[in-house]
Amino acid sequence: MTYRSIKLIKRPETTISDDVFELTTQEIPKAGNGEVVVKLTHLSLDPAMRGWMSADEKSYIPPVKLGDVMRASGIGEVVESYNEKLPVGSRVMGLMGLTEYALSDGQGLNIIPKELPAEAVLSVVALPGITAYHGLFEVLKPTSGQTLIVTAAAGSVGSLVGQMAKNKGLTVIGVAGSEEKCQWIVNELGFDHSLNYHDADFAEKLEAAAPKGIDLFFENTGGVAQEPIFNHMNAHGRIAVCGMIADYQSNNPAPGPNWMGIIKRRLTIQGFTMPDHFHRIPEYSQALGEMLAKGELKYRSHILEGLESATSGINLLFNGQNKGKLIVKL
Amino acid sequence: MTYRSIKLIKRPETTISDDVFELTTQEIPKAGNGEVVVKLTHLSLDPAMRGWMSADEKSYIPPVKLGDVMRASGIGEVVESYNEKLPVGSRVMGLMGLTEYALSDGQGLNIIPKELPAEAVLSVVALPGITAYHGLFEVLKPTSGQTLIVTAAAGSVGSLVGQMAKNKGLTVIGVAGSEEKCQWIVNELGFDHSLNYHDADFAEKLEAAAPKGIDLFFENTGGVAQEPIFNHMNAHGRIAVCGMIADYQSNNPAPGPNWMGIIKRRLTIQGFTMPDHFHRIPEYSQALGEMLAKGELKYRSHILEGLESATSGINLLFNGQNKGKLIVKL
Repeated sequence: MTYRSIKLIKRPETTISDDVFELTTQEIPKAGNGEVVVKLTHLSLDPAMRGWMSADEKSYIPPVKLGDVMRASGIGEVVESYNEKLPVGSRVMGLMGLTEYALSDGQGLNIIPKELPAEAVLSVVALPGITAYHGLFEVLKPTSGQTLIVTAAAGSVGSLVGQMAKNKGLTVIGVAGSEEKCQWIVNELGFDHSLNYHDADFAEKLEAAAPKGIDLFFENTGGVAQEPIFNHMNAHGRIAVCGMIADYQSNNPAPGPNWMGIIKRRLTIQGFTMPDHFHRIPEYSQALGEMLAKGELKYRSHILEGLESATSGINLLFNGQNKGKLIVKL
Repeated sequence: MTYRSIKLIKRPETTISDDVFELTTQEIPKAGNGEVVVKLTHLSLDPAMRGWMSADEKSYIPPVKLGDVMRASGIGEVVESYNEKLPVGSRVMGLMGLTEYALSDGQGLNIIPKELPAEAVLSVVALPGITAYHGLFEVLKPTSGQTLIVTAAAGSVGSLVGQMAKNKGLTVIGVAGSEEKCQWIVNELGFDHSLNYHDADFAEKLEAAAPKGIDLFFENTGGVAQEPIFNHMNAHGRIAVCGMIADYQSNNPAPGPNWMGIIKRRLTIQGFTMPDHFHRIPEYSQALGEMLAKGELKYRSHILEGLESATSGINLLFNGQNKGKLIVKL
């Protein structure tokens, strides 16, 4: 009985080429005392994975070691267990990697209810949802009547940020990179406005969409939209820096705005990453599950089939070609 | 009986040339009901004045109108009073402008004790002190054992930030632009290290001075030191953005660092200006007065003589030629 894994064997210099990965086949392990074996059913492909491939020891989480299974979150079923907390048949989620089977001591694995589709779990209740929830409520701290802008607004995090902000009574502007995405966030998700960052007159359109300025900015991308949004922030505005997907694959990232505006508008800019806040997952997941059950959160999943689809599929996140949460179904 | 004032008649484009000001002479006014006439004795020249001369309506405080007396803080004596709270002979401080006399309804004037030298008041208890106090304790929130870096460390704000941080048990690094200033902050003020930002190997010297990285960054300057310091920040570091003196006179300010580091190091960057916090002046001034009385805060003042010295004297702040708090004695 064998299974396949994707190992990281080389660090990408810019884009993720196939040769940074190796597809290996090995025997399914036996669980020892306290351990479980999980058969993965769904893998999540997330922008953060690009950072984990780099050798930056100063980052928020150690890089994946060369030769190790590539880190990724996923959902699976416990098929062998010597761990009382995770009996055979449990459905679990965790950072098990790009792999068909995983051996675990149970640390970092959370049981998830079987009634939710795996797509809903990975798209809403898992990393995208807790990231959106934490960034919106703990970093930006929105109040009704404010104007919020979110970049990568059709992405897995951005689409949830905007919907939760709408439910909270804010005016919400979404920035995306295609007309299809711009229409989806307004027509399906109920955002007030959408802006395409490819438009040459982006800054003028931004001023028209936010005549009273921007109070809260949820930043997922960096790139050309950043400076016009920064320049349109109101006094005491808050910026949550969650992602810089425009720069993840660049060796020479574009500079940011001059800091004079930070003083003049008394801005607060705060970066965050979820591993610092993993202890709050139960609380966040419950809140997200309730919103999902009430129909307050729509999502769409972009499904790839088979483990081997992950190696090239991950690039869809960086060329903007994915439509919704990118998931590999095994 | 006449007095002289300096009015702003033109907005500076880059540096402050003499022709932006006009020296006018007029009759000393009479106080009406509730009003006082103040004879100024000391004027404070501060970097913020450069911002107040610009036409940026989006800034934290309205620009000085063309034709109005240039805004500045100062100390004077009440010489005529129809205001019970400010009897004749009171020593008062406030934003009375570059002028020898001022008529006021008392709003924004604070009585200050006569036992402190005016230089000590303007250098420590007034704007520099409350700015240093607020930025350090309310924005950076230091704890003993952390490493703090402050730019313009020999300036009126930076020198107080560093001394208060030392008293709180931090390791303090000061950045300045001359060897004389670097020696003064270490030898006289007790900073742990000083760095000259003109040094070509500034980044290497910074790493040597802060082998465990920087936890707190009090930014007064912008310019070439900013990015190396930003890159050397520790996880969960905090940055207070107080001034950007390197850029105040530029039409084309240098860009800031890319925001990826904000995510990776989960930094918080917060801009502040004191008018938002003027209600806390009594509390801050009392704390500063007590530190001063205990001999915990050293300062030096750079004294210019006569109202007319203010027009060219203000440039000393921007070319780094001032040594200590710049004050005009009338």
